[in-house]
Parts: sequence; C-alpha cells; structure tokens
Amino acid sequence: MIAVLRKDTSVQQTQYLIDLLKEMNLDVHISEGVGATVLSLIGDTSRVDMDLLKSLGMVETVKRISEPYQQSNRKFHPEDTIVEIGDVKIGGGYFAMIAGPCSVESEEQIIEIAQAVKSSGAKILRGGAFKPRTSPYSFQGMKGEGIELLLKAKKATGLPIITEIMNISTLDLFNDVDVIQVGARNMQNFDLLKELGRTRKPILLKRGLANTLEELLMSAEYIMSEGNDQVILCERGIRTFETAARNTLDLSAVPVLHSLTHLPVVVDPSHATGKAKLVTPMALAAAACGADGIMIEVHNNPSCALCDGAQALTPEQFVILSRKVSQIREIVI
Amino acid sequence: MIAVLRKDTSVQQTQYLIDLLKEMNLDVHISEGVGATVLSLIGDTSRVDMDLLKSLGMVETVKRISEPYQQSNRKFHPEDTIVEIGDVKIGGGYFAMIAGPCSVESEEQIIEIAQAVKSSGAKILRGGAFKPRTSPYSFQGMKGEGIELLLKAKKATGLPIITEIMNISTLDLFNDVDVIQVGARNMQNFDLLKELGRTRKPILLKRGLANTLEELLMSAEYIMSEGNDQVILCERGIRTFETAARNTLDLSAVPVLHSLTHLPVVVDPSHATGKAKLVTPMALAAAACGADGIMIEVHNNPSCALCDGAQALTPEQFVILSRKVSQIREIVI
Amino acid sequence: MIAVLRKDTSVQQTQYLIDLLKEMNLDVHISEGVGATVLSLIGDTSRVDMDLLKSLGMVETVKRISEPYQQSNRKFHPEDTIVEIGDVKIGGGYFAMIAGPCSVESEEQIIEIAQAVKSSGAKILRGGAFKPRTSPYSFQGMKGEGIELLLKAKKATGLPIITEIMNISTLDLFNDVDVIQVGARNMQNFDLLKELGRTRKPILLKRGLANTLEELLMSAEYIMSEGNDQVILCERGIRTFETAARNTLDLSAVPVLHSLTHLPVVVDPSHATGKAKLVTPMALAAAACGADGIMIEVHNNPSCALCDGAQALTPEQFVILSRKVSQIREIVI
Amino acid sequence: MIAVLRKDTSVQQTQYLIDLLKEMNLDVHISEGVGATVLSLIGDTSRVDMDLLKSLGMVETVKRISEPYQQSNRKFHPEDTIVEIGDVKIGGGYFAMIAGPCSVESEEQIIEIAQAVKSSGAKILRGGAFKPRTSPYSFQGMKGEGIELLLKAKKATGLPIITEIMNISTLDLFNDVDVIQVGARNMQNFDLLKELGRTRKPILLKRGLANTLEELLMSAEYIMSEGNDQVILCERGIRTFETAARNTLDLSAVPVLHSLTHLPVVVDPSHATGKAKLVTPMALAAAACGADGIMIEVHNNPSCALCDGAQALTPEQFVILSRKVSQIREIVI
Repeated sequence: MIAVLRKDTSVQQTQYLIDLLKEMNLDVHISEGVGATVLSLIGDTSRVDMDLLKSLGMVETVKRISEPYQQSNRKFHPEDTIVEIGDVKIGGGYFAMIAGPCSVESEEQIIEIAQAVKSSGAKILRGGAFKPRTSPYSFQGMKGEGIELLLKAKKATGLPIITEIMNISTLDLFNDVDVIQVGARNMQNFDLLKELGRTRKPILLKRGLANTLEELLMSAEYIMSEGNDQVILCERGIRTFETAARNTLDLSAVPVLHSLTHLPVVVDPSHATGKAKLVTPMALAAAACGADGIMIEVHNNPSCALCDGAQALTPEQFVILSRKVSQIREIVI
Repeated sequence: MIAVLRKDTSVQQTQYLIDLLKEMNLDVHISEGVGATVLSLIGDTSRVDMDLLKSLGMVETVKRISEPYQQSNRKFHPEDTIVEIGDVKIGGGYFAMIAGPCSVESEEQIIEIAQAVKSSGAKILRGGAFKPRTSPYSFQGMKGEGIELLLKAKKATGLPIITEIMNISTLDLFNDVDVIQVGARNMQNFDLLKELGRTRKPILLKRGLANTLEELLMSAEYIMSEGNDQVILCERGIRTFETAARNTLDLSAVPVLHSLTHLPVVVDPSHATGKAKLVTPMALAAAACGADGIMIEVHNNPSCALCDGAQALTPEQFVILSRKVSQIREIVI
Repeated sequence: MIAVLRKDTSVQQTQYLIDLLKEMNLDVHISEGVGATVLSLIGDTSRVDMDLLKSLGMVETVKRISEPYQQSNRKFHPEDTIVEIGDVKIGGGYFAMIAGPCSVESEEQIIEIAQAVKSSGAKILRGGAFKPRTSPYSFQGMKGEGIELLLKAKKATGLPIITEIMNISTLDLFNDVDVIQVGARNMQNFDLLKELGRTRKPILLKRGLANTLEELLMSAEYIMSEGNDQVILCERGIRTFETAARNTLDLSAVPVLHSLTHLPVVVDPSHATGKAKLVTPMALAAAACGADGIMIEVHNNPSCALCDGAQALTPEQFVILSRKVSQIREIVI
Repeated sequence: MIAVLRKDTSVQQTQYLIDLLKEMNLDVHISEGVGATVLSLIGDTSRVDMDLLKSLGMVETVKRISEPYQQSNRKFHPEDTIVEIGDVKIGGGYFAMIAGPCSVESEEQIIEIAQAVKSSGAKILRGGAFKPRTSPYSFQGMKGEGIELLLKAKKATGLPIITEIMNISTLDLFNDVDVIQVGARNMQNFDLLKELGRTRKPILLKRGLANTLEELLMSAEYIMSEGNDQVILCERGIRTFETAARNTLDLSAVPVLHSLTHLPVVVDPSHATGKAKLVTPMALAAAACGADGIMIEVHNNPSCALCDGAQALTPEQFVILSRKVSQIREIVI
C-alpha cells in the first residue's frame, strides 16, 4: 500500500502517521519527491482501513498494491478452484450449463422444464422460490413450497438444484438445496454472507448492479473467511446510462476475474439483457470469452401466445444454444 | 399504464393480451396509430408486473403513467408527513440537524460529542454501532455495546438517537433507539424492510448507491405497506464515473422527491463526499435546495494530529455550519 | 409518439397543444384514462422536438414509438447494408478483420506491421495519424506525414487504410484514405459529421464514451442525411463505474444494433479494454455475438523489452486470434 | 508520479524502464516492498504518457501525484483568476448572473428578454445561435443571423453576450461576441479548443456529459497552453443512471474545482435539470456551495399557454431567484 502525503504536511504529522502505521505491524519506507512524500507500507495491509487513511487531511491519496482480498486471490492460490455439486463440476476447465424457469410455478411446470433442459445438456436446474421484487405488490414467489417443488424435480431428473436465499431466517429450508444463490441486491448483505460462510454448501454469488469486481471479491471473502471456499461468482449485468438492454452485461469481467481469482465465473445473460433475442448471442459471447458456466432461463408453455420472444428461451432455442456453446468452448479452450 | 405493441402483432395475440389485462381488473383503451397499437390500461396498475409485460415479444414498450408507489405518493397524500421523534419534528417545514461520530468508540467519546453537537444546534445524535464494511477484515463496530453507549449519551443529553440496523435478528437491541437507519447497501433488503414496517419506529432509509429515486420510494413502500408510515428518506450520494469525491451527491433528488412524495428528505454530505472540506459547502447547498434535515459527522479528538481535514468536522466547524444552515433556511423557506 | 398530459391540464391548454401538433402535420388521437390524458401522435414524428415537448409544464412524459432515425433504421431498409472498401466488404454476412498500430511512427514500422497483419488475415490496415489526446502535452500524432506513410503501406501491401479525422479543415489530406474514422470524442461533432456526409467515402463512426445506441444512430443519421450511406458503426467501450478495464465493452450493442439498423457493426476490443490479455477473449466474444468486423491493435517491436503485455498484440498473438475468430464465425453464422 | 511494477518483473526490464524514464529527464527513486517494486518519478511528469505506461505488461499501476494540468492548477497559481468581460467580473469573489433564452428566435424576443433580465440583476446575456442537436432534423439555430440579433440586444441594453461556437470555420462571426461558449459535446474537440486558445476572448467551457473534472481541466489546459488564460468552467450536469432530472447536476464539482484550480466556476441548472421547477432550488444550492456565476434560461412569452413550467423561468420567477441568490451569497462568502 502506498500513501502520498501532501506537500505541506509537517514533520510531526508525518512522524505521527508513521508511528501509527508501525503499531499496525507495518514497515514504512519513505521516499521524498518533488511535490510529495510517498510512504510505502510493507506487511499485511489487508486489514488497513483505506477509507480512514484517505480521509486524513494530510494524505493526498492512498493506493493499494496488494489486493485487499486474500482467500479468493489467485496470487495466494494459483490453481483454479473446482466447485463440485454432486457429480457436476464447475471451474478448472469444467463447464456447466444451468437452466430453468425464472420462478417455480407448479409441480408440473418445474418437472417438465427440468426434463427438457436435462435432455438438452443442462447440468443444474435453476428456479426461483423466494423472489426479490422492487415492488411489495408484485408476486414474491412460492417460497418454501417452491423449494419443495424444486426438490421433486431434482428427484425426478437427478439434476442438482440452485435457488436464491433472501433472509438468514429461512436457511433451514435450504437443507437439501445443492447451490444457494445470493442475488445482486444482497451482494453486500454482509450478515447473510457470513452465515452462508458457516454452511458447507456451494454459494453462487451474483455481482451487484453497481458493484466493482473488487467489491464482488470482497463479498466472496466474507463467505470464505468463515470457512466456506465453495464460491461461484456470477456476472449478471451492471447499471449504466444505456437502456437498450435491461442492464449492460460486462463480459470483460470474465477474463478480469479469471486473472484476479481462482474461483469459477458464470454468466447470466437472461437477467442481464431481459430480452430473449439477446440471450443467445450474449451466451455465445460468454462461452467465447471463457465463462465456466452459463445460466439461462427456459420456459415451457407452448400454448402461451404471449411468451414467444419473452426473456426466457423455449426448450427448442435452448437445444441450439447449448450445442453452439459446446462447439465454441472446443475452439477457445 | 401504456403498452405499445409491435406492428406485426396478430389480432389473436392482441386479443389474448387484452383478455389477460381485463382479468387483472383493468380497462383497456385501444388506439391504432401508424406503426403501432397503443393500449392504455386504466385502473389500479400498481400491481401489474411491468417487467413481465416488457419481456413479451409482442410488446415494444411499456410506460407507467401513474407511479407504482401509493402510500408514499404525494398524489394520494398531498400534505407533508411530519415525523416526530420525541420532541423533534422533521418534515412539513420542520428541520432537524443530525450529528455525531461515524462509529461509537467509547462512553467518553460519545457523551462528549453528544454534548458538543447539542450545544451547537443538533437535534438528534447519530453514531454507528453495527458498521457495514466492504472487507470482512475491517472493524465491524461495537455492535450491541455501541447501542448501550448511545443510550447513555441519550440519557446524558436528552438527544434522541439514530443508528443503523443490518440484520433482522438484532431488532431487539433497538428497542430504545429512536430512529432506525437502513443503510444504502440494504435499501433493497426487502425482508428487512418488511420487518421494520411491522415496528412503529421512525425509519431513516438511505438511497442505495445505484438506485433510482423511484426505487427508493418503492423501498419506502415496503415499509409503509406493513403499516409503518414514519419513513425519512436520505440522499447520500450515488456512484458515477467521477472519483473526485467519494460519491456524487445528487442534490436535485431533494426537490424531485419533494414533488413525488410527502415523506421528509434529509441529506448526508459527510458520507457522500468523504472529505471534510466538501462537507460544509454541500451541507449549505442541501439547505438551500430545501432539505428537511442534514446529517453530519462530527468528531472530538482535539489531540489527534491526523484528524484535521478528515471526513468528520470538528465541533468548531460544526457550530459555524449549523448557524449558516439556519440563515439559509430563513431565505429559502 | 405518445404524450401523456398531467391530470390538472386545462381543456384550453390541451386544445392549444393539439392545434400546435396538427400544424406540424400530425394526427392526434386522444385517450382519457384514470389520472392522465394520453395523446397519440400519428405521422412523421421524426422532426418533432422531443425535448421541447418534455419541457412543457403540462406534459408528464413523452415516449417515441417510431424511432427518430430514418435512413439508418432497419424498419425502412430491412436488408443489411454492405459497405465496400475496394475489394473488401463489411456487413450482410461479410466480415473484415482490421488491424494495425495505434499510431503511425515510421515508414519501416507501418510497412512491417501492414505486411504482418495482411499475412495473418487482416483485410484493412488501421493506424493513427491525428491522435486525440486528453493532454495538450502528449504526442498528437504525425498528422499529414502519418497519412503519407499509411499510403505507402497501402501501396506496399494492397491493404485499404482507415485513419481518424479530427478537424474538417484537414479533409483534403484524406483524399486517398479508404475509410475515414470519427473518434468517440467527436461522435457528436455535428458539423464534422455533416461535412463527412457530403463525401462519398465510407465512414467508421465510433460510439462516444457515454452515448446511447440511439444517439449513435442519430449521429449516423447526420452523415446519411447529407447523402453518404456508407457508415460503419463501432462499439469501443463505454464509461461506467468499473475501472478494472479501461472502459466497459458493451457487447450487447452488437445484437441490439443489428436489430435496429441495417448498418454494419464492428468492435474495437483494444481501446475498450486497454490491456492485451483482455483483447483476445473480448475479440472472440465479439465474433460470437455477431460483429461484422473487429479492430485490433498490433505492434511489431520484437526488441522492445517493455512492450510484452501492452495493449497491442504481437503479430504472433494476432495470427492465433484471427484463426479462432474465423472458426467461431463458422459456428455462429 | 508513481509506477508500481509487477512482482515478476525481471531486473533487466526494470532497468530498461528506468533508463527510458531518465531519458525523459525524470529522476527515479526505487522502493522495494513486499509484492511490488515502487518507482517514484520526480521531475516534470506532465508530459509523461500515462496510458502508455499503464499499458506496459510489467507495470501494475500508475498513479499521478502531481496533476497533469499546469496552467489551470491552483498549486502553481494560488490566486483566483478574475475574468473580465467589459465591466463585468467573474471569479475571485466577483459573481455574475447570466441569463437569456435557450435560442435566439427574433429581434423582438431577444431584446425584450435582455431588458427583462437586466432589470432583474443579470450581468451577461446568453442566447443560442448555433444549436447542437442530437437529430439532424431538429432546428439548428438561427446561426449567423442569431449572432446579429444578440449584438442588437447588446447594443440596446449594454449587456455583454455569450453564445456557443460549434465549428472553427465560423470563428469570424464571433468577433463582437464577448464570451465564446464551448458546449458539452465539444469539450474534447481539441482542435477547436486550440483555435480558441489563440484568440484573446473569454471562453466558457462546459463540462462534457461523461467527463471527469480532471478531463475538464485538461481541456482548459488546451486553451491556456495556446496563450488564452481567460477560461470560465461550467458544471451542467453529468449522465448517470438516474432519469428523474435530465442530467445529474454534480454540485460538489464547485468546491472540488475551487480547490484544484484558480479558474472561475459557473453552474447551469437549466440544462442540467431540464425542468423549471428544479431550476430555482438548484440555482440556490449552486450559490450556497460557492459558484462564481449561474446561467439561467429565461423566456418571455407570457401569452404562451404551453410554456408555464417549461425549462425556462419567467422573468417574474427570475427576479425572485436573483434576489435569493444575492442573499445566500452574503451568508456563505
């Protein structure tokens, strides 16, 4: 970590700061330049409160050199983490297609879709039981009952299941869920992350709408620092000024995260774009830039005159997507 | 609500959608134009799932005319809400200065600051006990013990207190807290909002880093729809590309919110800017554009050679700020 | 176009507005709903000043249904435009790899790179002669002399050339340039666009750092409305809060633009990411989501100990990239 | 300037870089830490190409300590610059209200408004003659004729005038204009800036929609480096995800710029917000945080039933605004 002091900082103030830093078990190298004094802090700086340093009047700027995340950091763990979900593996060269409906609606619906996506190459079934909604007046999901139906679909197809948690107090309902998802809005719900860190279940952690990749890794660190290293990261679009798609899918997050961390990275083009016709091209692009998994919404209401073109793909569209993704992976790996 | 259908939508599809909307107790007016069919939906559209409509292939665009929030909507509640906190009032012409340290650190510290800010015109004492931190390795606050110390400061000075909750399971600790704060990162922690809606305590709801004002009002709606209408909104800066200040304080949020809602609006320039020298000008600007309250960080370590210029103001700076804010309010009211 | 009027608009005001709109040769359909009056404007609304309508006190919101761009609009020109640059074609199924150095530095440099990229599959040579730089103290390019050198490289290899214009007054220097590039910072330099619209040269128009896709198409419209329909659009990253890469490459722009316009769309992953190790994965992703061309920076200073890992690829890296792009295109087309 | 090198950088590479930097007349101090080598570059680093350094594979990060702008930098020019426009002064404690219509429309209109705003305290008349418009089909202003009318209004009232230039080739038309405005879209039209730097006229430079304050100062530097130091900076809103107002007025830019530069800073709340009812509160806020001037749109069509509530204020609203601004300035100065 480097701290640059203002030109007009007194010798006493400088010494005061150096003493404080040494009390934190840091070595301090001083370099006097034109216009500034540069302090290089050497040692374990991950526990240094950067915001506090920055807010000091005498400090012009603070810059981390070593990253503030440790357990998720590839520098300290060069090999890819492979997360195992039953027989399914994600990361380290293993790729998993995750598919299913946005919300669980009925036993018939979820079993039918589960069978359809399984036959098209999906390895994991997704489906929402607890649904975070902007409006209190919108459908909030089937909750515990939805999880029961997912478990029936798991039994019927053998597919492991992934579903979202919103509240620590419902954790017991997730006992037989294979992967617990943390949604974008809860990415910095730190108490929830810590509690999930005390489980031994794989966690799929979605990037917040306006969170940096470093913040995503710090949130993974909350889970890992409690002892759970089975974390899968998920890029699902960020909020920008552009409104042509629902969010801006930041695909460069995939190679950036692969360089910063050993954790697997999956991409969710369905929620990012919000439009079925954008899902396939963006899923292919995710495969091309090296994602370890892709999450796709698939629906199965062939009779629904309204649904063509909605955010979810039909099983037929998903078959084609799935095959092209496999072909692209053969080229880029 | 208006839904514009694509040019190539079949008569059957259009009729299918109209029937669906009528089942939701909506009247539908049809207007055929060049290049599009426009459906005007009339009735209670606050329960219509706009995302679902938008995702339909036949729908080109959906636009709300009536806002999706009801209880927080000024249209249905034209008079300003006045939130009462003991003898202190906020909103409807009443203004409150809220001040205190970022974190509670010790009994001596919090009582000393409480006395200092009280004598300079603060009406409410703020102080963090549970601290949301990006890093699991940073200080997480004194937690329950911090609340105990705030209550001692309340007893010593008579100032009501405000402090942040991060987790429903700690709600019992807030029994004697006067105002419960929901931080920016939890603005869409919907289960927390619902639970706070079941209390009868004033809630200070901070805007999320990347949340629109409409989303802020929808989160207020989560609290209000459970029966608690004592909600204070707080603008505390949004995340943009500019990094000269910590966040971009969006002061136009104050008059915009005043036109959309009857709830009081306070501004937190300390967290928004992260730099003491920006706090005073932005606090004065907040007063000038009509804020109902201002939250300021004040520290009291006169011996600390490092602290001058940090994010918090000294009690001396706060006195001056407080006086100028009063003068500006006399002009703009 | 739809205009929604406020609830409290008087009959006289409404009539006044309707008369005004009729004077613009628009038909107006009125639909009275709960809480609002909706006017549907029918006719050629591309000349209606939406900002003016929006700013009227009686107007709550204005929404275009038909897009404000006409000549670039796929609705009125369903077939893909194929831009021809000598023997090279872009768009309508034709793909072109564009490669070359960031700046032209010397005759030897540009000819060597031109030969290298040609042998690896590039169809067009890029190279900066006029360089827009944030600082007046940075190198501003070789200017006219740089164009001379590009023309020598063209002669030596037969590759058509593309280079950026910054100023109308230098247009004469571009007489033998094959494609004139408009940089991101000049995307809304409307006088420059109009002037280029009066040439008959293909124009590569880069998206501005903070411009929407609709604004990009409106800028294309400036060129096309003067009679030049040889416009190639270029996605090169947008400015967001994320700083892990230089900009956020918005790849969903490719399928979105393909649905809105018939113009070809190329992607520049070199400038978007600013880091060589991100260029290859993002170029492959661009190919996977259907780009009509990719622009890549390639350098040729094998002796330069500093350059490995810089933004530009080596010719060796470019060969591999070029081959994989071709393979991916075979899958996705 | 500090450059942090990657851990795996070889001794040869490091030496190569150091030699290169020394050739640029920089001194280099080396500080070896855990995990990184830190180079402190001492000397005139304003000419160092930071993007190039950053793009080198061996360089992990580059951080400026001394700012890249010199002539606009308060460090090298501590006293406020006072720009003189006839008898009117801006900066250094002098404040100017700038008012007028969005576009010049007729002689009657511009003279009437000029008289109205003069009597209400405006010191400078604004009015658009060349109008940058997103659409080529929108009204582009009265151009040269509009400037003629502004000059008539100047003659009639004695108010100096400010109007926007879009194109170097029209510079002759601005001979009698008092202040030349560069619009947000041209903030990085570097050739235009250089040309204006060769004039001796005051330039009002508007911040680009998505430009940082450092970039704004670098654009001022383009003008100043050609010999014209009469630059007035203008904050006019930035583009963010929030759409409740047209743009997000970044008022913290005012105190931030005052600390970084000696140039005067004015605020344009009319264009930033796009709504008349937001203009007054944001103008008062601009005065409260220390702006050196405020630009307000004022119209004069009392008979126009449509115009109440539009972006422009009526002369009556402007009188009140103007008086309150004066009162606030007395408090905050």
